[in-house]
Amino acid sequence: MTQTRADALARDADDPLGFARARFALPEGVIYLDGNSLGCLPRRTAARVADTVTREWGEGLVRSWSEAGWIEAPAKVGARIARLVGAHADEVIVADSTSINVFKLAAAALALRPGRRTIVTEAGNFPTDLYMLEGLARLTGIEVRAVAAADLAAALDDDTALLWLTHVHYRTGAVHDMAELTAAAHAAGALAGWDLSHSTGALAVDLNGADADLATGCGYKYLNGGPGAPAYAFVAARHHDALDQPLTGWMGHVSPFDFAEAYAPGKGMARLLCGTPGIIGLAALASGVATFDGIDMGVAQAKSCALGDLFLDLVAATCPGVAPACPATMRGAQVSLAHPHAEAVMQALIARGVIGDVRPPDVLRFGFPALYTRFVDVWDAVAVLADVLAREAWRDPRYAVRRAVI
Amino acid sequence: MTQTRADALARDADDPLGFARARFALPEGVIYLDGNSLGCLPRRTAARVADTVTREWGEGLVRSWSEAGWIEAPAKVGARIARLVGAHADEVIVADSTSINVFKLAAAALALRPGRRTIVTEAGNFPTDLYMLEGLARLTGIEVRAVAAADLAAALDDDTALLWLTHVHYRTGAVHDMAELTAAAHAAGALAGWDLSHSTGALAVDLNGADADLATGCGYKYLNGGPGAPAYAFVAARHHDALDQPLTGWMGHVSPFDFAEAYAPGKGMARLLCGTPGIIGLAALASGVATFDGIDMGVAQAKSCALGDLFLDLVAATCPGVAPACPATMRGAQVSLAHPHAEAVMQALIARGVIGDVRPPDVLRFGFPALYTRFVDVWDAVAVLADVLAREAWRDPRYAVRRAVI
Repeated sequence: MTQTRADALARDADDPLGFARARFALPEGVIYLDGNSLGCLPRRTAARVADTVTREWGEGLVRSWSEAGWIEAPAKVGARIARLVGAHADEVIVADSTSINVFKLAAAALALRPGRRTIVTEAGNFPTDLYMLEGLARLTGIEVRAVAAADLAAALDDDTALLWLTHVHYRTGAVHDMAELTAAAHAAGALAGWDLSHSTGALAVDLNGADADLATGCGYKYLNGGPGAPAYAFVAARHHDALDQPLTGWMGHVSPFDFAEAYAPGKGMARLLCGTPGIIGLAALASGVATFDGIDMGVAQAKSCALGDLFLDLVAATCPGVAPACPATMRGAQVSLAHPHAEAVMQALIARGVIGDVRPPDVLRFGFPALYTRFVDVWDAVAVLADVLAREAWRDPRYAVRRAVI
Repeated sequence: MTQTRADALARDADDPLGFARARFALPEGVIYLDGNSLGCLPRRTAARVADTVTREWGEGLVRSWSEAGWIEAPAKVGARIARLVGAHADEVIVADSTSINVFKLAAAALALRPGRRTIVTEAGNFPTDLYMLEGLARLTGIEVRAVAAADLAAALDDDTALLWLTHVHYRTGAVHDMAELTAAAHAAGALAGWDLSHSTGALAVDLNGADADLATGCGYKYLNGGPGAPAYAFVAARHHDALDQPLTGWMGHVSPFDFAEAYAPGKGMARLLCGTPGIIGLAALASGVATFDGIDMGVAQAKSCALGDLFLDLVAATCPGVAPACPATMRGAQVSLAHPHAEAVMQALIARGVIGDVRPPDVLRFGFPALYTRFVDVWDAVAVLADVLAREAWRDPRYAVRRAVI
């Protein structure tokens, strides 16, 4: 077990992904352990975005839809994300937000499994997954069953159209076995769909290896696409011909510039598009995805896991008063600790330059994206946490005020 | 009637909005008459976007959701758009795309008028409006009736939940009488909703003056928000308390950072939010909307109308072979001309630096945003068009190849 700061530095010197940190413009004086909420700024993004704004938009104007390739950007960036999730290039497209894509994909699952009227999901799933499924249920009369993780397989029956899960739990970091649960869904005649928001760019996701049917995930966490970056959607190629989703915007039309009055769906994933894609956000996302060029996701996953293990080991040794709130194995690139005054503790940490976040009711959450997090960052962060706890620095009245967003 | 180039220059010298052109970074050697498809780059946008990327995201990281005000940006930019459409500040919010907002608002109308199962719209409406309404109809079993403009009022009955129209027709520029048609909808007990994509920033829109119920529109045309800029939505305050839309993403929750399992809608327009808003796109949109600071929309509308009139007058005098395909009055800030080889003609114009666009089957479309279009631009553009037509320059085989996007 690594115990000293020198040990941590030695591990950084040996890190096969150490080179990737230079791909980011990281602020001074901060240990950033919240890339699972908002990824860091890639070094090339400012120039890429500036070029999109000044040259492509400013000079090219409307001509850039064809000449700068804007019209192909959703498929092109999607194809680059596909490699990170074990999908074929034509199985992923960038579109809208994760929330909107949950709606599209869940509705598509109902159309692919006609007569089945239930969607099964996990109680305590990320709220937007639950809310969007409920929104679809209110509109269509189908039922959403949210059950505990242990009861998921048993909840599947011949009325289940879709098992919709978040692969890595946002609060605990617990990872579902994608292949096993997908197989259970298929055994019941249902489809399996996955929210990969805390997985893509963190773990070696293998959608086709797991025989998954549907997936979506956000661009602004591990993919480093910028605040509110567009999301992506995956549909296995075997479903493309029958794919039918209700948010039939003009960009999903097979030939949008014919301006036909009747909708005719585009080929494959193109029909997942809805309105006009946000090109500036897409440019930033493309630059974020490019930070994974040449990165083996198996190596990245192993490094994040090792960073998390070191964090938990050091906390166990030096931080009485907090308890792990995450699994020891089968964990995403994040760890969680429980403390009765989690928000005040996090405010005290942030005031000292260690940035994580909190999730109700009592969870301190820390993320370890492999591309820019060092072992020494983990060592230093735990030293600050130990000091905050030992001095009870979180009792400072400044930290008693609840913040709207943290 | 203005006939000479000197006359046009004199009108520019007298233009009370002439100062606004300096708010844009316009490319050299181009007469841009397609701001109705993609608005020009405001001079301040590059710096604004760069600051959002480099300082707010790069340095502030996740702290910027509160410290840089990202979380309030959709409401704040919406409030600035509200002035341009005759709405109260809290009646407009920026969210998603126009297409997605059509779906939300149409579904909300069904919830506000329970038991009514028909949406009436105009045949030949902008395709995404038709497609999104049809998508909602397929999901819910309601009926969409698309009828000719002259038959709209007669089509309303006690089964109509919503009259959904595009205020300015994308192809012809024809303007509906918003107050009259809204009154007709109300007389039938229905709501009236308006797609303002070709209206906001072009005309003096007065939603509350017309007693309109719902509206949406895009940020990338006259609002100069950049390619694929986020859209905005309007709901009259009288409907806020009962407002219920099905795309219930976590950002529409009354308290998203509680991560509650049950959805509880946010106050007023906040419940129109769905996923995490794209902050870089919002920054560009804010800068685009700011180009209207101090602009009287009545003056802007009158100028665009005068530019269009001049264009049509000069075409009538100098361009045999094209015919107006737009109304002489009650017209948006655009004109349309019919030519049997419209696309080849437009390609020939673009090759000579005059940028408009085409709409099937035979329409050449030219837009005249008041903030940056000059009378001399109109004069010069028509001179190029006259030359292209007189020399039949459009017969060049290079222009016979159909382009995907124009």
